[in-house]
Amino acid sequence: MPSPSAKDSTTKITLIGTGTIGLSFAAFHLTHLASPSQLTIYDTRPDVAEYVQSQLPKFFASPDQNQNHDQDTNTPPLPNFSAITIATSLPSAVQSATIIQESGPENLSFKTSLWAQVERHAPSTALLWSSTSGIPASQQSSSMASPSRLLVVHPYNPPHIMPLLELVPSPDTSPEAIQATMEFWERRGRVPIHIKKETTGFVANRLAFALLREAVHLVQQGVVGVQELDRIVQTSMGPRWAVAGPFKSYHAGGGPAGLEGFFGNIGGTVQKCWEDLGTPSVGDGWEEGVFREAREAYGVVDVGERDRITRRLLQVLEEERGAGGKEE
Amino acid sequence: MPSPSAKDSTTKITLIGTGTIGLSFAAFHLTHLASPSQLTIYDTRPDVAEYVQSQLPKFFASPDQNQNHDQDTNTPPLPNFSAITIATSLPSAVQSATIIQESGPENLSFKTSLWAQVERHAPSTALLWSSTSGIPASQQSSSMASPSRLLVVHPYNPPHIMPLLELVPSPDTSPEAIQATMEFWERRGRVPIHIKKETTGFVANRLAFALLREAVHLVQQGVVGVQELDRIVQTSMGPRWAVAGPFKSYHAGGGPAGLEGFFGNIGGTVQKCWEDLGTPSVGDGWEEGVFREAREAYGVVDVGERDRITRRLLQVLEEERGAGGKEE
Repeated sequence: MPSPSAKDSTTKITLIGTGTIGLSFAAFHLTHLASPSQLTIYDTRPDVAEYVQSQLPKFFASPDQNQNHDQDTNTPPLPNFSAITIATSLPSAVQSATIIQESGPENLSFKTSLWAQVERHAPSTALLWSSTSGIPASQQSSSMASPSRLLVVHPYNPPHIMPLLELVPSPDTSPEAIQATMEFWERRGRVPIHIKKETTGFVANRLAFALLREAVHLVQQGVVGVQELDRIVQTSMGPRWAVAGPFKSYHAGGGPAGLEGFFGNIGGTVQKCWEDLGTPSVGDGWEEGVFREAREAYGVVDVGERDRITRRLLQVLEEERGAGGKEE
Repeated sequence: MPSPSAKDSTTKITLIGTGTIGLSFAAFHLTHLASPSQLTIYDTRPDVAEYVQSQLPKFFASPDQNQNHDQDTNTPPLPNFSAITIATSLPSAVQSATIIQESGPENLSFKTSLWAQVERHAPSTALLWSSTSGIPASQQSSSMASPSRLLVVHPYNPPHIMPLLELVPSPDTSPEAIQATMEFWERRGRVPIHIKKETTGFVANRLAFALLREAVHLVQQGVVGVQELDRIVQTSMGPRWAVAGPFKSYHAGGGPAGLEGFFGNIGGTVQKCWEDLGTPSVGDGWEEGVFREAREAYGVVDVGERDRITRRLLQVLEEERGAGGKEE
């Protein structure tokens, strides 16, 4: 079998699914393709062409926004949407693709059936990516003849802004497919991380949900309110971890002795906290109060504002990392 | 009893302890005092004057650094150190102070004995603050006649840069002392958060250590390496949570239905992750491998570089919050 290839000169991306994640990936690819004519979108909804035309512009800066914040943000301007091909059938959508990326429903039978069909119609070298946040590639590929090109490429929402991609292969995914996928994202200035085992929830969500669980516990116990807890994170570990992740931070905190010094100094406090962590479950009854506090504090969040500020931070971090690793 | 007062016109701060936290607070106060002549430092080490003179400048930008990054950072320039008074005895250090802030050893008997002495010599209206990360005010005040002015003011290291202060009163702390402490920090553009109960590790460390525990688990299980885990956090929840804390982020993630919508959509995945979280303990044997990986990845971390980038992020976030809440 020929090896999978994702060289930019021949990249033809087909996106399946036009939910929030699918459209956000479309926005990303549109601004990072060498030739925009190579983006194809497929969805079973009957009005897909009109839907994409009306929704996709929301992922780009309007002329007004650019005027207000021209030196602050790197929100890309509206690209030429005529470059997108809307496919009318799955076979025609995938027949000449080099990359097929699905962001469809989180439903195992949908995904197994999709990949079996894709496999029959797509070139044998195409890379197959799933945006799933929870269904491992090893389950999705159960009806495929050759599962070696399928892997999870899990974004951190929204993918047109956030740099992280978790690459989670199944035990059947070939090293070449993993490598080609890594290179694709690295060439575009993104941060693909190879997750070595198909763990429940992968890595980013597990870490975030571990903190969220303790956050729920502390609010439930009346130690702080929802908005106070958010402000604590926003003014401490949020900015800290944007610069240096938890291990690096505590390694620095230990001085010349590093992480070992850190645990030597306050390992006792860490262990006391670990033993005292709360273990609420979904459905325990904490929901009503926490949901209400969040509604009262935030109403409906202005996601555009959040994304604009996030872009400014990411721009600073990217400048600091230097010019390396960017798209050619 | 007269109420505690922290009005800027009369603020006279005495710092006890010249470790990393004490000096970092000194650097903060020096750049935020209306009149720098009101900062007094006390430590039992015999060479305290020379020590402060040699170490404190490290918390400020050298002329070189300012030249290289003049428009990027807001690292304050060297202030006039002659404004600091070095006290030679505890009674003389505290006798006219309006705020007494201790950053001494994390040792209960040291702190109980210190506050009993301070109480005998300080004005009866002085606010009494401890930087402890683990010893509650209710324990520290056990030998005091009147514990109503003592509370924990726990910084996120280093306090001359990070905005968060956790204010953790004991049940005996007066509402007036809490209020005056809140106002002191708010006037200086910082983010004081009132923690309602004396919980083990307070709030920020509990949240961070909850995530750290799962991080240790995932590395121990071979799912990712130390450096990969850090990169995941740096490119996802770090920048996200710098802009919007976990509740606000997931409230936004649920669309118009908010946090309730979020748990409606993926509460099942959250619960699966919660049930699958690891529970390593300090001393379990994971340390050697994790410490070695951290050493190999990072060597000795350049904290100056980390702080410089952190300042840039915080500057963006402060701009976005608008001009409100800043020091007069």
